[in-house]
Amino acid sequence: MSKSISIFDTTLRDGTQGEGISLSADDKLKIAKKLDELGVHYIEGGIPGSNGKDIEFFKRVQTLGLHAKITAFGSTRRKGSIAHQDDNLKRMIESGAQAATLVGKSWDFHVHTALQTTLEENLAMIADSISYLKQQGMELIFDAEHFFDGYKNNPEYAVSVLRTAREAGADWLTMCDTNGGTLPHEIYEIVSRLDLELGGAPLGIHTHNDCELAVANTLSAVQAGARQIQGTINGYGERCGNANLCSILPTLQLKMDYTCITDNQLSQLTNTARYVSEIANVHMPVNQPYVGNAAFAHKGGIHVSAILRDSRTYEHIEPEKIGNKQRILVSELAGQSNILSKAKEMDLILDPENENTKQIIGKIKNLEHQGYQFEGADASLELLLREANGEIKELFVFESFKMLVEKNAGSAVVSEAFVKLRIGGESIYTAAEGNGPVNALDNALRKALVEHYPNLREMHLSDYKVRVLDEADATASKVRVLIESQNLSNTWSTVGVSANVIEASWEALVDSIRYALIGQALPDQNVSHSPSVHGIVNH
Amino acid sequence: MSKSISIFDTTLRDGTQGEGISLSADDKLKIAKKLDELGVHYIEGGIPGSNGKDIEFFKRVQTLGLHAKITAFGSTRRKGSIAHQDDNLKRMIESGAQAATLVGKSWDFHVHTALQTTLEENLAMIADSISYLKQQGMELIFDAEHFFDGYKNNPEYAVSVLRTAREAGADWLTMCDTNGGTLPHEIYEIVSRLDLELGGAPLGIHTHNDCELAVANTLSAVQAGARQIQGTINGYGERCGNANLCSILPTLQLKMDYTCITDNQLSQLTNTARYVSEIANVHMPVNQPYVGNAAFAHKGGIHVSAILRDSRTYEHIEPEKIGNKQRILVSELAGQSNILSKAKEMDLILDPENENTKQIIGKIKNLEHQGYQFEGADASLELLLREANGEIKELFVFESFKMLVEKNAGSAVVSEAFVKLRIGGESIYTAAEGNGPVNALDNALRKALVEHYPNLREMHLSDYKVRVLDEADATASKVRVLIESQNLSNTWSTVGVSANVIEASWEALVDSIRYALIGQALPDQNVSHSPSVHGIVNH
Repeated sequence: MSKSISIFDTTLRDGTQGEGISLSADDKLKIAKKLDELGVHYIEGGIPGSNGKDIEFFKRVQTLGLHAKITAFGSTRRKGSIAHQDDNLKRMIESGAQAATLVGKSWDFHVHTALQTTLEENLAMIADSISYLKQQGMELIFDAEHFFDGYKNNPEYAVSVLRTAREAGADWLTMCDTNGGTLPHEIYEIVSRLDLELGGAPLGIHTHNDCELAVANTLSAVQAGARQIQGTINGYGERCGNANLCSILPTLQLKMDYTCITDNQLSQLTNTARYVSEIANVHMPVNQPYVGNAAFAHKGGIHVSAILRDSRTYEHIEPEKIGNKQRILVSELAGQSNILSKAKEMDLILDPENENTKQIIGKIKNLEHQGYQFEGADASLELLLREANGEIKELFVFESFKMLVEKNAGSAVVSEAFVKLRIGGESIYTAAEGNGPVNALDNALRKALVEHYPNLREMHLSDYKVRVLDEADATASKVRVLIESQNLSNTWSTVGVSANVIEASWEALVDSIRYALIGQALPDQNVSHSPSVHGIVNH
Repeated sequence: MSKSISIFDTTLRDGTQGEGISLSADDKLKIAKKLDELGVHYIEGGIPGSNGKDIEFFKRVQTLGLHAKITAFGSTRRKGSIAHQDDNLKRMIESGAQAATLVGKSWDFHVHTALQTTLEENLAMIADSISYLKQQGMELIFDAEHFFDGYKNNPEYAVSVLRTAREAGADWLTMCDTNGGTLPHEIYEIVSRLDLELGGAPLGIHTHNDCELAVANTLSAVQAGARQIQGTINGYGERCGNANLCSILPTLQLKMDYTCITDNQLSQLTNTARYVSEIANVHMPVNQPYVGNAAFAHKGGIHVSAILRDSRTYEHIEPEKIGNKQRILVSELAGQSNILSKAKEMDLILDPENENTKQIIGKIKNLEHQGYQFEGADASLELLLREANGEIKELFVFESFKMLVEKNAGSAVVSEAFVKLRIGGESIYTAAEGNGPVNALDNALRKALVEHYPNLREMHLSDYKVRVLDEADATASKVRVLIESQNLSNTWSTVGVSANVIEASWEALVDSIRYALIGQALPDQNVSHSPSVHGIVNH
């Protein structure tokens, strides 16, 4: 039997059902590009016609020239209707997607309770819808909803649903554990039987994580003969999420000898997982398997000394194969090579023997120790490296800021900020209001700078995150602020850390503006004259 | 074969190896009590002698009168030494724990690479250590480290390790997948063979989640004959964590017909998981299986209408069995019964037909819709309910606050706050500095109140958390602040929400102080005279 597995990503459809996940059309297009680079074979983009974002996505994705097949999701025709008059099927066709994922019922209980129709009509709905979509030239993936619950309750009917779909022309028959309640040994038994009964029809598997078994269930199905896997990046999805491709791909490929994507693509897995988590704006748990920041982290003691002798002692795979890395939490042994490779990405050649380079590496490690985190703040890291390379010219001489929040009984809260700085010989003092302290600071700072640096008008803050570090110590705990900014063509992220949330925000704000203006000099003044330049961002 | 499973919790030992998890002796005692209520059979408390916290824990836990057996963890005697002279074993005995978890090597590669000794000496280290601890009357759980890697590499040696342990008197032989790289079908095959080879010796299983398979691996081992499970609450643990008892217990008990704890104890599972996450100060993912806030949450559309007809359509178990609940995210159908049951817990009888009760339920739902979250802020919820019941007397009349953060080039940032309020006929205006804006506000507010309410001196803030809600909209996004406070006997949590982080913090601060002073009236003034009372906390 073939060891090739077809990877079907539904981050953009089922993934968006997760609580707290909402993707714009732009977000979806960014993620689609990244998924294509990772090498998934199908990208399910959404439900055409369900909302404006999905319509826009299907239109614009066609211009990207992706290798993956774009797939549109929809249900079988409504009961008692005709397929070619069904609005839903019509919109799937009009989406321009190469493939259709058609979901139909396979649990008799659901046919009666949810659809409120007969078992025969449900089969007809499936057959009609598939025939019609196939006539339109679409590849067809049939998602049998609640297949395992259906099989347990009425195996004959569940199988007849798959047979009907196959006879109507479905290219893949995907068995869904929609409620996520099925166990791995049950999946193995049922899929094995199916594989025999259907004479090796192309079977797919779609699982949910309600018992923390979605990954195991997917692997069971593959071992029993399934050859298409539906899942999402980071396991996003309704309730407890879908099967997590970031755990399934490396296990299948590195441990079970299946082929999903190329080794080179697999080494992009960690980067892809973190990118999608950033775009989806969902915090990635540090302990996420394979791709999490702690997945190959070792706390002190006996583990570390063994790891240093041979990393196989406490690591189940080489983290580099999936683009993650070993971290020794208590020592300063890691780090230098990562920073140098980051500089290389930016076309910056740093000589590791150079005194300047050693200094900047020491500085970055020290900042990380203080709570800075550059994985989510590339722009701040780039500024540090370019600064070390003598490329950064300062924009202004910082003198002071004040930030005032005032609330009077019966009135709305007011936030104001005051910024004093010098540009060239000119002293500038501005005041601005905002809808919160950070917004007020941002407004006052821009007001001070925009006459000299008019292209600041093109940029704006697009995201703001704040996290309390070491939360257990309430009065002395530090805060990390991440700011994302964008202009017409670019998005960048910066970081600030302080015991004071306002100071941390100011740091990240200033870095954001410095990055936007990289290469623009401080007019009429050499930065080296002023020791207090940018004193606040005293990384 | 018996269907009874022995539950061994290692949250307090292996769980604390997780990145970002650090528990004080007090924290450990609180969690031990909660675990005992849940009904686990063993509580591994730590490594005696590794640090002061663990020594204190083992001493104080003996006074709690728990049902569970307290277990001390340690390694076999050092190579080339004598068991009864080994400091480590001595400390295990002196801990006063009823049971010992003794970890030994079972992978020949590790014996050579990490221990740097011979295979024979390793067997002697295991036999000697076990005999010695058994002579001291301790129950003995032998943890065979890297058992599965060992078995794959040299099955004869791995089995001889278990035989040696058994012959020396071990009560349980626990096979550890220390690196978390073994797959469920491998676990099943190996444990099945072991069960035969060792003639039904009492086997245990200890897995790690590096492949997102710790739960599946544990279930596989049980199906193959293991009868003790080692795991942690919420799956806390080194790297990607340990096997998650919160997922394993309900699956074994509700789906596989094994007996772990009583049904009544199982209904405390969600509460236990959330309690431990609070104490450990680790954010619980909303999508955590079984116990997460989104585990039984349904977004709008067809799912919801089917759920309302019959919840089995989209729920794999009844959430009440584990103490979780269904949430319909888009509708206002849920809620009332939860609030009434919460009031009952507080000995507050609210009549659901009463107009006042209807109003307060509407208010709480509305607040939740705005981003308030009362699950982590019991004190704020209690204030709302007692307020509705006419029990709360206001402490002061709020007039204004100002909060100023100032930074001058070359100097440290300064935070100051100014609070104006009236108590009785007296007008009070205070100013205070702080090490951040919230600390300054807290200081100024206490300064204003402490003369009238001197027992405020006994309380302090113990935790501060801030979360950006709807992070995608940087300028208009809301912030939720959670504050935990404590006095000598009590800990309570309050919440504030606003687009302005300072205002949200103020809200939570004021609630914290109101809760501390429940029952203390505003002197010489009736609250109803003043429409601006407490105007800022306008829940």
